[in-house]
Amino acid sequence: MKEKGLLIVLSGPSGVGKGTVRKQIFSHPETAFEYSISMTTRNPREGEVDGVDYFFKSREDFEALIQQDKLLEYAEFVGNYYGTPVDYVKETLESGKDVFLEIEVQGARQVREKFPDGLFIFLVPPSLSELKNRIVTRGTESEDVINNRMTVAKEEIEMMNLYDYVVENDQVELACDRINAIVVAEHCRRERVEPRYIKMLEVE
Amino acid sequence: MKEKGLLIVLSGPSGVGKGTVRKQIFSHPETAFEYSISMTTRNPREGEVDGVDYFFKSREDFEALIQQDKLLEYAEFVGNYYGTPVDYVKETLESGKDVFLEIEVQGARQVREKFPDGLFIFLVPPSLSELKNRIVTRGTESEDVINNRMTVAKEEIEMMNLYDYVVENDQVELACDRINAIVVAEHCRRERVEPRYIKMLEVE
Repeated sequence: MKEKGLLIVLSGPSGVGKGTVRKQIFSHPETAFEYSISMTTRNPREGEVDGVDYFFKSREDFEALIQQDKLLEYAEFVGNYYGTPVDYVKETLESGKDVFLEIEVQGARQVREKFPDGLFIFLVPPSLSELKNRIVTRGTESEDVINNRMTVAKEEIEMMNLYDYVVENDQVELACDRINAIVVAEHCRRERVEPRYIKMLEVE
Repeated sequence: MKEKGLLIVLSGPSGVGKGTVRKQIFSHPETAFEYSISMTTRNPREGEVDGVDYFFKSREDFEALIQQDKLLEYAEFVGNYYGTPVDYVKETLESGKDVFLEIEVQGARQVREKFPDGLFIFLVPPSLSELKNRIVTRGTESEDVINNRMTVAKEEIEMMNLYDYVVENDQVELACDRINAIVVAEHCRRERVEPRYIKMLEVE
């Protein structure tokens, strides 16, 4: 029986830099896991490409997929849907490859229920004040939106106890190194590899 | 309160290359953890230096230290004692530094009882037959000793369920990379870092 891949879930508060970290990880040619592209109803930001950064969908199309149970998780966040198409994830894991999701905190909770053995990584800013700075300098949000996001972020940091690992995004490259180390380490976890060795002993 | 260091325990069957892996790890200047030198009553092998590879002690001295409760763990293995002086380990952990032990399987079991939160890594050969090759090519053991070691090794592999991680020593440098990744990952484990973030939220 082929060994199944590992489901790697990167999440964290809005504005922490999940997308930047994910892009940096996948810019390395030696990255051995597969990225599951999310689906969203929000408008593309400048430079974002449909089918690369997200699958951009209408609200109607998204809700139809929910009805058809074609989403591993979905969440409504600041007025937009975000979700993960389920078929790609299941097929890739079955083929033995690791799958990497970069999703919002609400969605991560749903994935945890369906994949309790997944590897859940929470990305945090060095401090909440830095989170605020990042949102402000993005320069596209009103004061109300920012305050709303701060409240959400505080709740999300309190939700840290859903996760297996917490990675500080102090420097993007360092955060990527930590995430890659976590994946390497998880592949060495005894629960995952012990059956292989027990089998080896029986053969010999 | 200062955060305590992590106790890293590398163990595995005799002949698997624990010492070689440990030396390779500590040959890297960026290695941030401290090596706890073991104590033994066995004779030094060629090139081994007292106070560097081991503290070499007489049987009488070693047994006196057992009586004084000055050993974190000790084991008798193929007719010799091996042990870990306890004071160095405790002081270094208290100072916030990680401590690295390279010890036999019997000793690791004792450390697990005293440090359940330690990070226990089991080093295994790619196959049991390779383990046998390694012992043979070491060329200093009789057939009986080799067969005895094989029996011990099979028992030890069955003891894998004491450990958190299993690292295959297919190539020394790869094994070192995996061990370093495991240490990085463990420092990101939510249970270890969550209290820091909860405190941060309270302050803000």
